[in-house]
Amino acid sequence: MQTDILITDTLLFPAPGEDTLLPNSFIRIRDSHIVETGPMEALTDQEARTIIDGRGCLAMPGLVNGHCHGAMTLFRGLADDLDLATWLTEHIFPAEARAVTPEMVFWCTTLAAAEMLLAGITTVADGYFHEHEAARAFAGCGIRAVAAQGVIDFPAPGVPDPADNISAAARFLDEWQNHPLVTPAIFAHSPYTCSPETLIRARELARQRNAPFFIHLAETAGEQEQIMDPRGSSPVRHLEALGLLDAMTVCIHCVWVDREDLDILARTGAQVVTCPRSNLKLGSGLAPVTDMLTRDIPVGLGSDSAASNNVLDLFAEMDCLAKIQKIRRRDPVAIPAARILELATTPLLSHRSGPGGRLEPGQVADLILMDLDRPHLRPFYDPNLLVYAARGVVSGT
Amino acid sequence: MQTDILITDTLLFPAPGEDTLLPNSFIRIRDSHIVETGPMEALTDQEARTIIDGRGCLAMPGLVNGHCHGAMTLFRGLADDLDLATWLTEHIFPAEARAVTPEMVFWCTTLAAAEMLLAGITTVADGYFHEHEAARAFAGCGIRAVAAQGVIDFPAPGVPDPADNISAAARFLDEWQNHPLVTPAIFAHSPYTCSPETLIRARELARQRNAPFFIHLAETAGEQEQIMDPRGSSPVRHLEALGLLDAMTVCIHCVWVDREDLDILARTGAQVVTCPRSNLKLGSGLAPVTDMLTRDIPVGLGSDSAASNNVLDLFAEMDCLAKIQKIRRRDPVAIPAARILELATTPLLSHRSGPGGRLEPGQVADLILMDLDRPHLRPFYDPNLLVYAARGVVSGT
Ligand SMILES: [Zn+2]
Ligand SMILES: [Zn+2]
Repeated sequence: MQTDILITDTLLFPAPGEDTLLPNSFIRIRDSHIVETGPMEALTDQEARTIIDGRGCLAMPGLVNGHCHGAMTLFRGLADDLDLATWLTEHIFPAEARAVTPEMVFWCTTLAAAEMLLAGITTVADGYFHEHEAARAFAGCGIRAVAAQGVIDFPAPGVPDPADNISAAARFLDEWQNHPLVTPAIFAHSPYTCSPETLIRARELARQRNAPFFIHLAETAGEQEQIMDPRGSSPVRHLEALGLLDAMTVCIHCVWVDREDLDILARTGAQVVTCPRSNLKLGSGLAPVTDMLTRDIPVGLGSDSAASNNVLDLFAEMDCLAKIQKIRRRDPVAIPAARILELATTPLLSHRSGPGGRLEPGQVADLILMDLDRPHLRPFYDPNLLVYAARGVVSGT
Repeated sequence: MQTDILITDTLLFPAPGEDTLLPNSFIRIRDSHIVETGPMEALTDQEARTIIDGRGCLAMPGLVNGHCHGAMTLFRGLADDLDLATWLTEHIFPAEARAVTPEMVFWCTTLAAAEMLLAGITTVADGYFHEHEAARAFAGCGIRAVAAQGVIDFPAPGVPDPADNISAAARFLDEWQNHPLVTPAIFAHSPYTCSPETLIRARELARQRNAPFFIHLAETAGEQEQIMDPRGSSPVRHLEALGLLDAMTVCIHCVWVDREDLDILARTGAQVVTCPRSNLKLGSGLAPVTDMLTRDIPVGLGSDSAASNNVLDLFAEMDCLAKIQKIRRRDPVAIPAARILELATTPLLSHRSGPGGRLEPGQVADLILMDLDRPHLRPFYDPNLLVYAARGVVSGT
């Protein structure tokens, strides 16, 4: 059988639970899947449509950006050094009202996809309006995407009447069923911009189509006062009371969660995506990620948008997460670097579908080659360096 | 008169106090100094030995790495996720005892210089042993350096008998007097590895030769118990009592300083260099940089060594400093990005010699060209993006 891509002479990332890098290895890829790996001396069939010389490179699983609003690259650096509420209501929402069109979403998401692919990201979970255009951009660039149509109780780009927000999301889910690269999903913006009724309807729609359901949750200390819950409970308890949390729910941020909130997240099987650099830039706080991991809550890493970060670089997120958890816990081993690498390379919602993000036969070939022949990656004693020294972005100097 | 280098059609970084980027500008350089800048239409003499097409680039002052141990690139990623004391005594000191030779210092400092130049750093303040070899490496690579010979009360590489540590430093100062790129200096390792007598003698030697004096200070919460001061005072008050602090003293870290310490630093004119990524990685803490700036203490940024960071990238330090001060103060405007850019581009000890780090006639041409034609730097509304999106390291993907 024909080999599509053969990567030769590369350093192979260790399998989960192992820590030995395998030098002089090959990887055989067919139909977008890894079909064989091994040491070069065991390579018999050397025919392939494309042969990639992997010398000096490390082959590793592609990174998974668990939270992004790709189109917002247009607002990169538009308004910095502001708190979430001011930033959102005085700068981002007005800019969106002026600038967001289907064309803008397509092209600015294409820019985001280019930035992410260059940064070693092979899967992104995106949420925005006109998400059909974002999905087209991702599919066109060849990046795997969970693309989620935004739902919000205000007039939004493409959905001028909020009464149509659920039906617009339903149309989007229907359009992108069974696409090989794009998984359609729903993104309810937050419990402070969506009424309980909207949240329940959006969740119900996602459940009917077996689609992932995303929501920004507990991002700032002030959110509890803003959510539309007459009982005044915490954002997590609010969602639980509405029946929103289960293993298809992805809660973004979860910075301000107490023990009971964490227990609820663990019990319901909801996934958390933490966006450490965005939370720092907006001054929102440090998410208790170590406490989530202790409870076996599935945790992913996200960049959030280029407007609040200002880059889509999972290497930078890994480094930041590692460092801030050390400080939050006053413990330099709060989360070992190897564990962080796992979080950043495990597919979103993989707790439902088994492990991924491994360089093993049978896995999708979402892998990247890191060029280690760079001053800042020398010497390379240990994959920890992928967390503490590697960067996704291409130098501008 | 002959022009050595003419940079054409570039975007020019704003002068301090201004915030307008000047498009389509030229920069004329002669004898390593900027002699003229202006808009392209005012460019009369277009002759030059070297012409650099600056289209798509931003010309900005080179970055100043205020604290580094270049040779320690050999220990990059050797021992991660440890606290300072364990890391230093169980891993770094033993590795140094085994591995540090003059050759190692020369070649590993050369690696550091290459990494820094590629990352847009044009000046570095370095401290190590066999510093003569480090100075040779910096001079050979063409990077401006304040190179400081280490002083410590233990057997050290090149100084097996600590009784010789001051005389070895004196020899080093003599050897590098009046070098065009290298300023020799003294680095007393810390108040917990140097006795009061050694500190006084080292400071006195530096004063005699008018050389900068560096010291690691107040890096961890535990340092106060370890310093060799029978009065048990804080590290800063300990140094003040010994007469060590003045405008030629550079105190590295100053994470654990109280109000009185800060007042002492301000009163004596000592400079602080903060190393945010190193402090985070070792779990040491968050330095109160906003409180230093309020008191007009001159603050620089440093990477510390590749062993505790693990990169020598001032763009990453700027981003980290901005973000952690936001969190430390729970204030998203704790230090505006423009102010951080100033800290990272102002020459070390410039409070003694007037301003620098400007693209103006008369200034040394320590400047860099940032290629803005990269996805992660588009759009480019504002120089803030140099803090929040730019990176020094060349991508490994
Ligand atoms: Zn978001
Ligand atoms: Zn240091």
